[in-house]
Amino acid sequence: MGDRQPTVEDVARLAGVSRQTVSNVLNAPEIVRAPTRARVEAAIVQLRYAPSMAARRLRTRRSATIGIHLDPYAGGISGIVLDRFVHALTERATPRGLRLLVYAAADPAEEIRRIRQLREGAEIDSIVLTGTFKGDPRAEWLVEHAVPFVAFGRPWGDPGDGIQMGDPTRPWVDVDGAAGTRAATRHALEAGGEVVFLGWPSGSGTGDDRERGWRETMGFGPQDRPDLRWTSLDSVAEARAVTERALDGASVDAIVCASDTLALGAHLAASHAGRPDLVVVGFDNTPVAEALGISSVEQRPERVAEAVLDLLMDETGTDAAPRHRLIEPQLVLRTAGGV
Amino acid sequence: MGDRQPTVEDVARLAGVSRQTVSNVLNAPEIVRAPTRARVEAAIVQLRYAPSMAARRLRTRRSATIGIHLDPYAGGISGIVLDRFVHALTERATPRGLRLLVYAAADPAEEIRRIRQLREGAEIDSIVLTGTFKGDPRAEWLVEHAVPFVAFGRPWGDPGDGIQMGDPTRPWVDVDGAAGTRAATRHALEAGGEVVFLGWPSGSGTGDDRERGWRETMGFGPQDRPDLRWTSLDSVAEARAVTERALDGASVDAIVCASDTLALGAHLAASHAGRPDLVVVGFDNTPVAEALGISSVEQRPERVAEAVLDLLMDETGTDAAPRHRLIEPQLVLRTAGGV
Repeated sequence: MGDRQPTVEDVARLAGVSRQTVSNVLNAPEIVRAPTRARVEAAIVQLRYAPSMAARRLRTRRSATIGIHLDPYAGGISGIVLDRFVHALTERATPRGLRLLVYAAADPAEEIRRIRQLREGAEIDSIVLTGTFKGDPRAEWLVEHAVPFVAFGRPWGDPGDGIQMGDPTRPWVDVDGAAGTRAATRHALEAGGEVVFLGWPSGSGTGDDRERGWRETMGFGPQDRPDLRWTSLDSVAEARAVTERALDGASVDAIVCASDTLALGAHLAASHAGRPDLVVVGFDNTPVAEALGISSVEQRPERVAEAVLDLLMDETGTDAAPRHRLIEPQLVLRTAGGV
Repeated sequence: MGDRQPTVEDVARLAGVSRQTVSNVLNAPEIVRAPTRARVEAAIVQLRYAPSMAARRLRTRRSATIGIHLDPYAGGISGIVLDRFVHALTERATPRGLRLLVYAAADPAEEIRRIRQLREGAEIDSIVLTGTFKGDPRAEWLVEHAVPFVAFGRPWGDPGDGIQMGDPTRPWVDVDGAAGTRAATRHALEAGGEVVFLGWPSGSGTGDDRERGWRETMGFGPQDRPDLRWTSLDSVAEARAVTERALDGASVDAIVCASDTLALGAHLAASHAGRPDLVVVGFDNTPVAEALGISSVEQRPERVAEAVLDLLMDETGTDAAPRHRLIEPQLVLRTAGGV
């Protein structure tokens, strides 16, 4: 093509689709099947097809630049999940002609001020919310000010199973934690019937959801077998101490954990108690689980990122097509390295 | 103040400085002492002082929006250092009225294309480069196209000690790895004189620099005591196997490592060999070192971020005041949890 600017025809030819399909990807991506859309987006990137024009078209729909809050680094083993999500969002936003702007804020009120400033300066068109919680004022504010957003994390305010499916004004994507601990518990049951759940104190939506997967798979009601429900704050040292105390004299075949931090504590305690092969399953599939050979539930933040962008670019959601996605996590099996 | 827009006087009063100082912070921050500048920036944020105007003034100097590349997630224990740097940069950019835009790119050529697109769209004013390497084409391109940038990571192309101090057109900030392993080795020598360095194969600037700190502290020339220089790829399993083989029958008092990944492998091997209290020192101070009680060298990415922003906003660098900063890392001492 020499120095000629690439055209829609060039993109269509390279992607092996019609002009109309390319146009749809630019203007109504939700009606294009995902594999086709990916092919067209790849062709757009490869040809460097008028990216600013593509961005401008998308902008008329919305979201040429997405804002996302980055928490201060707080240490900890599982913080990496959110970082992986931001990485994945960045990778997937770029070929869609979208930009990602990151900002800092110490609390929800400051985040709202920050979002207002960014909107006033026309620096962002939409928001990806993370770290949502019950009664989150940010979601209220965004709805009230008609700022398009998608949350990573479902609202936990509802009664019942905590999954609020009905409100198309508050789109969210979340990982199905209970499905993850169901898979973990099914695997753990291969080692024997006495499967412990080592979780956080009750009351957090995420923690209660992960406990539910274990409870359902074990066939337990809320009051059954309290001896198999251990509790620890998300600390390696405390999880280790709790496990050491509770293992002593108890008949335990496996421990399913709400996080890799808890799993590491349980694994160290089991090794110390002369049971290095006790089945321990973590959650989040962090580098530490990988390094120590601890099985763990992988959240697949790349799929979360894909779904967030799909919802952000799709304004057609109705009650009939709820703007929510639950991502199925994946159990990664490993053999402990015999620490 | 009701709904009145805050003025420079309001900012000056709240920060306890003169109007001129506020003006300096906005227009010539390099001449304001850091604590004073921080106070003024905090007042600007607190009062929400015409942030867009402040940004506009900064923009005339440069960098209302900074671009930074986010690598795809590659797993691994030490990847968190770069994420911490991006978090820290975000936190520190915001009160300076700067934005941070993240982008993806699979290789340097794609990153250059991406930067060009972002510049053409006036979406960024400057770049923070990460993952620099010998002969990096990105730095060349940025100099040639007069795009302001600062690199996290020094150029390793020079002869001698590998620190190129003289080129004010290529500003960089890096962590003084040799200083980190000097501190680690001094600490290790308290356990006895036979201190091993477990590092990567020679040839990487970062790895050779970390080895140098150990060698200098031990008083070794390049050919001395090859029995105390162990080599492994950055893998827990390989580091563990190397340490198990090399420990067997050898008299070793401590192991200083080029990374926490290597340190974890060494620690597991030592525990397995019945020496759980063997002194092992890692590098990067990751959550896994913290969780297992392994001492480690902390890179202080927050200081790197601060220095990067200082250099980015300061165009007065000359040969007399080189636009480079070496950040002193900090040894964090811990007692192994007896894995």
